[in-house]
Amino acid sequence: MENSVLKSVKGTKDFLPKEQAQRNWIRRTLEAVFEAYGCKPLETPTLQYYELLASKYGGGDEILKEVYRLSDQGERELALRYDLTVPLAKVVGMNPEMRLPFKRYEIGKVFRDGPVKTGRLREFIQCDVDIVGTSSMLAEAELISMAFAAFAKLGLDVYIEVNNRKLLSGVLQELGVPAERAGDVMLSLDKLEKIGVEGVRDDLRERQVEEPLVAAITAFLQKGALTLDALAKQFSSDTFRQGVQELQELFDYLQGAGVSGEVRFSPFLARGLGIYTGTVYEIFLQDRSIASSIGSGGRFDEIIGRFLGDGRAYPAVGISFGLDVILAALSMREASERAAADVLVIPLGTETLSLGLANRLRASGLRVELELAGRKLKKALDYANKEGIAYALIYGENEVNSGQVIVRDMRQGSEEAIALDSVSSWLSSRL
Amino acid sequence: MENSVLKSVKGTKDFLPKEQAQRNWIRRTLEAVFEAYGCKPLETPTLQYYELLASKYGGGDEILKEVYRLSDQGERELALRYDLTVPLAKVVGMNPEMRLPFKRYEIGKVFRDGPVKTGRLREFIQCDVDIVGTSSMLAEAELISMAFAAFAKLGLDVYIEVNNRKLLSGVLQELGVPAERAGDVMLSLDKLEKIGVEGVRDDLRERQVEEPLVAAITAFLQKGALTLDALAKQFSSDTFRQGVQELQELFDYLQGAGVSGEVRFSPFLARGLGIYTGTVYEIFLQDRSIASSIGSGGRFDEIIGRFLGDGRAYPAVGISFGLDVILAALSMREASERAAADVLVIPLGTETLSLGLANRLRASGLRVELELAGRKLKKALDYANKEGIAYALIYGENEVNSGQVIVRDMRQGSEEAIALDSVSSWLSSRL
Repeated sequence: MENSVLKSVKGTKDFLPKEQAQRNWIRRTLEAVFEAYGCKPLETPTLQYYELLASKYGGGDEILKEVYRLSDQGERELALRYDLTVPLAKVVGMNPEMRLPFKRYEIGKVFRDGPVKTGRLREFIQCDVDIVGTSSMLAEAELISMAFAAFAKLGLDVYIEVNNRKLLSGVLQELGVPAERAGDVMLSLDKLEKIGVEGVRDDLRERQVEEPLVAAITAFLQKGALTLDALAKQFSSDTFRQGVQELQELFDYLQGAGVSGEVRFSPFLARGLGIYTGTVYEIFLQDRSIASSIGSGGRFDEIIGRFLGDGRAYPAVGISFGLDVILAALSMREASERAAADVLVIPLGTETLSLGLANRLRASGLRVELELAGRKLKKALDYANKEGIAYALIYGENEVNSGQVIVRDMRQGSEEAIALDSVSSWLSSRL
Repeated sequence: MENSVLKSVKGTKDFLPKEQAQRNWIRRTLEAVFEAYGCKPLETPTLQYYELLASKYGGGDEILKEVYRLSDQGERELALRYDLTVPLAKVVGMNPEMRLPFKRYEIGKVFRDGPVKTGRLREFIQCDVDIVGTSSMLAEAELISMAFAAFAKLGLDVYIEVNNRKLLSGVLQELGVPAERAGDVMLSLDKLEKIGVEGVRDDLRERQVEEPLVAAITAFLQKGALTLDALAKQFSSDTFRQGVQELQELFDYLQGAGVSGEVRFSPFLARGLGIYTGTVYEIFLQDRSIASSIGSGGRFDEIIGRFLGDGRAYPAVGISFGLDVILAALSMREASERAAADVLVIPLGTETLSLGLANRLRASGLRVELELAGRKLKKALDYANKEGIAYALIYGENEVNSGQVIVRDMRQGSEEAIALDSVSSWLSSRL
């Protein structure tokens, strides 16, 4: 093997045990919370027909450029899925007998042949929860409750920014922003918090937005009246009113149900252009040690129906958690990494009996590594030390004869002889 | 969407919630057992350089024909991994500082563009444990112990057939089988149990094995002396003796350590040609309700070293569990399927308070679905019934006023009013 070949493909990486143990913990924590919220698991294939992924779906051309294409021996035109939403829509379409609302989670890899930046890989794991088949804001309230519950379990302090696309569209329309300008203006407005009113004005000019429109937007921003109540006094279109009403309903649910966690109304949050039709939200760390969102979602009432084209409506709302951005958030804290094993059993000429001992400890729920390489005692203890294993069990002929095993507390360096038949409970009570 | 596109790619399928819930349980059970045995998790990428997969590795041309190839926008020649062993070898090669033996597990998807049969998909999940860096038979003993522990947790009654490739090679050499004939002869011998001695003779003739060789093999089989001891009296080459010694050592470990589970010596078990150098094993259901093996593995002392070509030796032994064959084995039993939720909360005009109630129950560890679609009581109860949800909580204005909630036991059809602040403990004690 030449070293030139011995490398990971650009945009991919190996997750070595320390990182992968944390990722497994994150995945299991999310799964447990998803299941506590009555979500059902689904697994869809990685391989999809290209034609399916390329069909008129909100993702649009930008995403299609990043799709990995391939064909099989039967010359079928295939592609690797780039999200978990199209596969979900396919499942809904293929299973018309399915009871709606359908509340499913899927944790799986998706692939995008796009620019590689820090923390952005070309194959990455998405953790999605979607509810298909209800327009009720109770669905959003459930997902937001669930997000707070998940991050509490993960030990991360977060807040959630919430907006409604109808409200935002209404505001832009009434400010006189033409539809073809809406995208640019939204991108500028989204920077308000960072760059201030002056900054937004300059940014709009750079985007060559017409001067009267820049003036109107600037005047509106200068009023600083950006709370839900204050906006409700300034705008009045049907679209706007519907957005306000939906948001109000959502906030009432969350507050009335005593959902603990900070929800901030953020009138310029847009989350891209195509997909979302109502509520949108993004989750941020309270300390913003990671600036970008660590989870996000929103309501997409149109896509699945448009995608399936069967004349039925499929109102839907979802939330997506990034496994590796959560890993990054956790890694920045004082991590108390958990060793891969609780106990190392070191046989000193007692391999067979040591295997039996290790198996009995495992059966009692302990995670036990058996020294396999025939290392001498000192080297084996070094290994336990480096791996952060809490206890080493030293088992030689003397111990066999006395019916005991020597237990070494690796942190304290102390040793104690423990009767063989009580070593399991001795260890369990200390771990 | 035309229905012609709305389908799964040949060789792939969606795993709907009932199946996927079982698969998740299998995966978690395996992970817990792997970790109890001190195995460390690893995750390698799906995308690999084609050149890496095509390099001189035991898999050989047969596997390469089934590799899905693709390229990225940078025109790199890529492929989807077809096993988890090449990616493991790559990790070992890229991390020379890694402490050996390295005992890792990986559960992940692999892809093979091959024939589609019942139960054989083109993308499927492999659950692999490998120990790299030790020649000790203690490693095999660990993996076999672990396999019995895993299937005990899964509730499947299995036995394990074990052989050693050195023993088998020695037997064939001494019987006069030339190297280029060994493959054919092994395939015939592997059928002995099914087709008997006569059958093997006919099969050898069909494969145009020379008549003197057919006669020698038949005479050997007719003696029926196929235990380890009986073979040891008939053969004597160094290769043969080494195989016997390794097997004896392994059996001594298993027996001496009190590993419970039936191990059968199977002198003609070969497990394909290229890869294995010593011990090989296959796991079968005791009732053979699935005829093929449901897990398998063996020792491959040469491949990683040959693959990396860095002049170091990387003795290795592994075991692989098939997630979906285990799913099939479990599905054939009277499955007590677990509902996706323990409780359905049905708000009758009390959405906000019901969301709060649901969240409190979730926080106490229950899996709770909240009725989101505004179904009437009867329809909601129908739904709970069909989903196998044990308890429905009916929460209307009357209950709010009395500080109670009506708990309906779905199996018994009985209802009881329970004080709101004790409903969580009431349910927990019954679930």
